[in-house]
Amino acid sequence: MNNTPSSQDSDPASTDAATQPVVRLKPKAEARAIRHGFPWVYADELVTDRRTQKLSPGTLAVLEDGDRRAMGLVTVNPNSKIICRMLDQNPDAVIDQAWLEARLARAHAMRERLYDAPFYRLVHAEADGLPGVVIDRFGDTAVIQPNAAWAEAHIDALVAALIAVTGVKNILKNGTGRARSLEGLTEETTVLHGVVDGPIPVPMNGATYMADLIGGQKTGLFFDQRPNHAFAARLSKGARVLDMFSHVGGFGLAALAGGASSVLAVDGSAPALKLAAQGAEASGFADRFTTRQGDAFAVLEALAEEGAQFDVIICDPPAFAPAKPALVAGLRAYERVARLAAPLLAPGGYLGLCSCSHAADLSAFRNACGRGIGRAGRRGQLIHTGHAGPDHPMLPQLAESGYLKALFYRLDG
Amino acid sequence: MNNTPSSQDSDPASTDAATQPVVRLKPKAEARAIRHGFPWVYADELVTDRRTQKLSPGTLAVLEDGDRRAMGLVTVNPNSKIICRMLDQNPDAVIDQAWLEARLARAHAMRERLYDAPFYRLVHAEADGLPGVVIDRFGDTAVIQPNAAWAEAHIDALVAALIAVTGVKNILKNGTGRARSLEGLTEETTVLHGVVDGPIPVPMNGATYMADLIGGQKTGLFFDQRPNHAFAARLSKGARVLDMFSHVGGFGLAALAGGASSVLAVDGSAPALKLAAQGAEASGFADRFTTRQGDAFAVLEALAEEGAQFDVIICDPPAFAPAKPALVAGLRAYERVARLAAPLLAPGGYLGLCSCSHAADLSAFRNACGRGIGRAGRRGQLIHTGHAGPDHPMLPQLAESGYLKALFYRLDG
Repeated sequence: MNNTPSSQDSDPASTDAATQPVVRLKPKAEARAIRHGFPWVYADELVTDRRTQKLSPGTLAVLEDGDRRAMGLVTVNPNSKIICRMLDQNPDAVIDQAWLEARLARAHAMRERLYDAPFYRLVHAEADGLPGVVIDRFGDTAVIQPNAAWAEAHIDALVAALIAVTGVKNILKNGTGRARSLEGLTEETTVLHGVVDGPIPVPMNGATYMADLIGGQKTGLFFDQRPNHAFAARLSKGARVLDMFSHVGGFGLAALAGGASSVLAVDGSAPALKLAAQGAEASGFADRFTTRQGDAFAVLEALAEEGAQFDVIICDPPAFAPAKPALVAGLRAYERVARLAAPLLAPGGYLGLCSCSHAADLSAFRNACGRGIGRAGRRGQLIHTGHAGPDHPMLPQLAESGYLKALFYRLDG
Repeated sequence: MNNTPSSQDSDPASTDAATQPVVRLKPKAEARAIRHGFPWVYADELVTDRRTQKLSPGTLAVLEDGDRRAMGLVTVNPNSKIICRMLDQNPDAVIDQAWLEARLARAHAMRERLYDAPFYRLVHAEADGLPGVVIDRFGDTAVIQPNAAWAEAHIDALVAALIAVTGVKNILKNGTGRARSLEGLTEETTVLHGVVDGPIPVPMNGATYMADLIGGQKTGLFFDQRPNHAFAARLSKGARVLDMFSHVGGFGLAALAGGASSVLAVDGSAPALKLAAQGAEASGFADRFTTRQGDAFAVLEALAEEGAQFDVIICDPPAFAPAKPALVAGLRAYERVARLAAPLLAPGGYLGLCSCSHAADLSAFRNACGRGIGRAGRRGQLIHTGHAGPDHPMLPQLAESGYLKALFYRLDG
């Protein structure tokens, strides 16, 4: 799995710049953005001669500009549209445990400043200087998603660095998801260190969530919505709350912590709803919490037929428009969510609509929601626009791609 | 001051639809957006015959589409580019104290749900259904900015409605600012009810601010930054904090409440800094708080010469690009702020850059900040994008104009 094994080197994941392959930008490629911190090279910007095409995914290489000046150390994946990812603007950098520890320590310091308890996204890929790598922390347990080939190649050093920096006792590798297949990696979920079993209780916004790191979706819990959960909680005192696409109860349990009189959580997944109910139980909210399994659109229509009314409704669907080809259909789906949810809202109630679609920008998503609300015959105010929490930082150079949007409306009668 | 005085009507500010003037959209004008809630008619969309041009600013009128169908009750100001503002989509609406009370009660209910204490923007103009009217509440005291002629004409009913809905004891009319001159209104600040004098203590984010409603800028305190103050406070534990363009200490006092080891507040206004110091005193933070009066750019340069370093720096300048003609120069000024502030930040420190410019959208502002940081030779992560708080709601139809942006970066060494 190592690119440049060397008998003189005791760390099997370390690299030696002198033996590094070289890849080169095409003469006309725009080198300036990369010098200013843009972290990627697209395949059509690179001289992809046979030698480059033969590099195995995850190979480290020195990137040169068209004039053969070294620009930094990159990881190359000839199978990916993003053919190079910048690891270090120092072309002589050595990617070993010490290098990984420095990156992790930087990420760790920010989270420890921002959060009272060690439950957060510790590493958010490019923005934390570890391209393609996502690490979520659940107290003593961490979940690594090594969604780029270079990280798979350095997984042992990454595990050692993670233990050294954070002191976590258990580490799971979650090898599922679309990003891995784009990178040509196989699916594989394994315990890399310690023991990972059973749901882990996660304290957040005054509630206790149950995160099933092995059986759950993604890494068992979505930390990115934490500030939006908190905003919904502020709206929920004494309110009848509907938590659509609830997963393990993200918005619903926060609303109960905020004083909601009742929460109905709806999701297509029975295991997710079971975890949500366990979370309500663990939080002492079980008497105000009910669940309903089913297709979200069908449930919204059924609730309308039943004449159900809520004071706060939050809809946090999966990504309907993860990439550009799905944009039109995705926006239509967001519009439909808004159109079906709005009639269930009591006059003066609050409607939260979320999108985690990369392809739908804020303006497009807001327009889709506005159309849906309008088609339901409702009007209102937009009182808050929320994004992912600060444990999901962005590279300024990639900031247009901020994927998570949460729009909170207050609707008239 | 009344548009349609009527001897049968005991409320002098009430209106009678039957005697209302009529204004009409041009045949080709886009009526659909207005039907869907867009609140304005621009001058070039209206048939501006002599009769319309003669209407006194603030006259109420029935707006008709090109086919003479009534679209709603508007207020007309022939002197303004925004010639009509929608008051009520019901063309027969009567704008009297009861109508005003209904609008105020709707606005009040939302703030009372969201805030623990009665200190907030109570009415945010169009989005709260009262075009051009801004009302800030400071406990028992309210400050009205009637920035549209119709509101001046109905000021007595507005005062009565405000007392009825909120129970405030003191009401100040703040008649300053650019919006009034665009509307052709004169400057005038008067106490309309009760007594307003001396700075009022305002509890916010764990600190006590001093708001001088008569001598201060705008309404003495900017409530819109409250969530961004709170975010800065989370970053500030044990930190040396620089609060540039501090006004009455918005970010600085919140940072002290968050545990900052020291705060230096810089502003061009001596009275603002005096209020900031009084706030620090009232909050019990005086020993960690210092001020420096001067031109912000000059002070940033002086601090660099002195070798000053900070762990958290927040720059919240006045609107450098309030309107489109000022956009290029304004973005250059934002870039300069970022370029001069970044060198003062310790490695791994946090830089908050704010813009309250309508003309600079989020993307343009982010690019200006990125250029400034880059020209200072710094790199980093964008960890948070904040907007105005929910007591500054937006009409979804005007959401593109969300004016307040707060970008929080963490910069490397």
